[in-house]
Amino acid sequence: MHALVIGAAGMIGRKLTAELLGLGGIGGRGIDRLTLVDIVEPEVSQSEIPIMTRATDLSDPATAARLVAARPELIFHLAAVVSGEAEADFDKGYRINLDGTRYLLEAIRAESAKAPYRPRLVFTSSIAVFGAPFPERIGDEFLTAPLTSYGTQKAIGELLLNDYSRRGIVDGVGIRLPTVVIRPGKPNKAASGFFSSILREPLVGLEAVLPVPRETRHWFCSPKAAVGFLTHAATLDTAQLGARRCLSAPGLSATVAEEIAALERVAGPKAVALIREAPDETVARIVAGWPQDFDARRALGLGFRADASFDAIIRSHIETELGGRLG
Amino acid sequence: MHALVIGAAGMIGRKLTAELLGLGGIGGRGIDRLTLVDIVEPEVSQSEIPIMTRATDLSDPATAARLVAARPELIFHLAAVVSGEAEADFDKGYRINLDGTRYLLEAIRAESAKAPYRPRLVFTSSIAVFGAPFPERIGDEFLTAPLTSYGTQKAIGELLLNDYSRRGIVDGVGIRLPTVVIRPGKPNKAASGFFSSILREPLVGLEAVLPVPRETRHWFCSPKAAVGFLTHAATLDTAQLGARRCLSAPGLSATVAEEIAALERVAGPKAVALIREAPDETVARIVAGWPQDFDARRALGLGFRADASFDAIIRSHIETELGGRLG
Repeated sequence: MHALVIGAAGMIGRKLTAELLGLGGIGGRGIDRLTLVDIVEPEVSQSEIPIMTRATDLSDPATAARLVAARPELIFHLAAVVSGEAEADFDKGYRINLDGTRYLLEAIRAESAKAPYRPRLVFTSSIAVFGAPFPERIGDEFLTAPLTSYGTQKAIGELLLNDYSRRGIVDGVGIRLPTVVIRPGKPNKAASGFFSSILREPLVGLEAVLPVPRETRHWFCSPKAAVGFLTHAATLDTAQLGARRCLSAPGLSATVAEEIAALERVAGPKAVALIREAPDETVARIVAGWPQDFDARRALGLGFRADASFDAIIRSHIETELGGRLG
Repeated sequence: MHALVIGAAGMIGRKLTAELLGLGGIGGRGIDRLTLVDIVEPEVSQSEIPIMTRATDLSDPATAARLVAARPELIFHLAAVVSGEAEADFDKGYRINLDGTRYLLEAIRAESAKAPYRPRLVFTSSIAVFGAPFPERIGDEFLTAPLTSYGTQKAIGELLLNDYSRRGIVDGVGIRLPTVVIRPGKPNKAASGFFSSILREPLVGLEAVLPVPRETRHWFCSPKAAVGFLTHAATLDTAQLGARRCLSAPGLSATVAEEIAALERVAGPKAVALIREAPDETVARIVAGWPQDFDARRALGLGFRADASFDAIIRSHIETELGGRLG
């Protein structure tokens, strides 16, 4: 099987690539060819599977046509301009997140018009498709009412994926990822960054800033769980989905206080002491508009699995990112 | 005030135009200029208000730019490729219903970048944004899960309207119209056509065909109520809408049996005897996927008003279309 990962240089894209190479296949079928693309050329380690990497610009309609011309049976579409950037640069957000997705679907349609072709397309959506006010837990039939252009573009991508799938052009599955913690790497300027950094920095002996009240509740998954959602979506029997191809992935609902309690259990009070409270009203106001909890019944029924606990999320980070050692 | 009606040659567009000309203004402001456009040049009667009519193709990005260059303060965007055609012609549906709407929003954005400009934009959406399975009554927080490309394009239009409104580019209101009965004119091939024809034809002594069981339930409004929704949307205080600019209009939920009972009360058993049952499984299957009832609480709270009864819908048709006389 030929698999294509669009957005392979991002954090989830790299972990997904590693997982695909590690497994050597997916759903009982071997991967004999892997194409990895992103706006910068993805870096890869040595592998027995032939890998082609390429820097591409998805906002050029010719890009999708070129990628799809090789007829990959499995496509992961993870590429996106992130929330903050899509809000700051209106045109760029719509160009990449909406037009880019549409070009991809249209390229598949054009290819399928030449000879039968209907790839599995796994699309990463986001809980940003939802906007306050929310019920206490967001169910599978709650309206998508985004409060950002990014969320709007993802919600439109979901509608297109559903329609192109209903038409038999593509075999789509959309997964609304929870906020991924612990993101490896350096602190970034994303409003959600602190959810990771209050764990990541103390684990290596560094100070971290907490800009919101400890009772702030949000919806999380580990990088490992996120990759698991995508590989499961790649092999799922989509007949079970009917016309509603997009799912809220099961996450963990936790407060900042619960995150910190887990950190204390795993890494002790010395780690917790490195968290410095520095209330930031702007961040607190943004975060207040975000989902806090879901009733992800559909995804659970379809075999998607959440992280077991926040302790497990932290331990998994120590294992994969810190070589098993606490700083 | 300069008002622009896009899609002015359609049934609702013509009735809206007549209403605007009759009122001479809207929300306490006079209309001193009216621009009417459609894919064919709209016909108009004499009027004291200066009217410009034009045949335009909304799938050409230059069209929207030209229309918006005159800076109309109020824009009604009713233009659409209808459900059946959007399903039959994939490209045309997306080109007019999605791209056309986006070109309009982008033209407003470009115009507002030159000098402050933020028109009220009333967008006709549709109950086709919803798809089965439904709850018994569809509430204001139910997900949009369309089962047609038309419904998909309308749902995307809603998301765009919300985002461009949130950004302050436009002051949008989207109205999900119920199925309009009694549509004046000749029977057409729309799957929903029988809902009108089983009333319209018998009222003038002609036979009509009923292709579905009498217990079939659906969601209706009169042409007059539909126009009322649009004029109310044009003057509504949009601060009340928050970020959710699109509303399910209040309609009447009725079964075919209830339609027929109203016909009997208004026009007697002779009219009812003209309805011939001719079950059509294809039509029945399509109709089974359509909404049956709504809890349109938000719109009701905002002052939108449904028709009083099916009897009133029929009487209003006799008054406006048949000069008050039964055939």
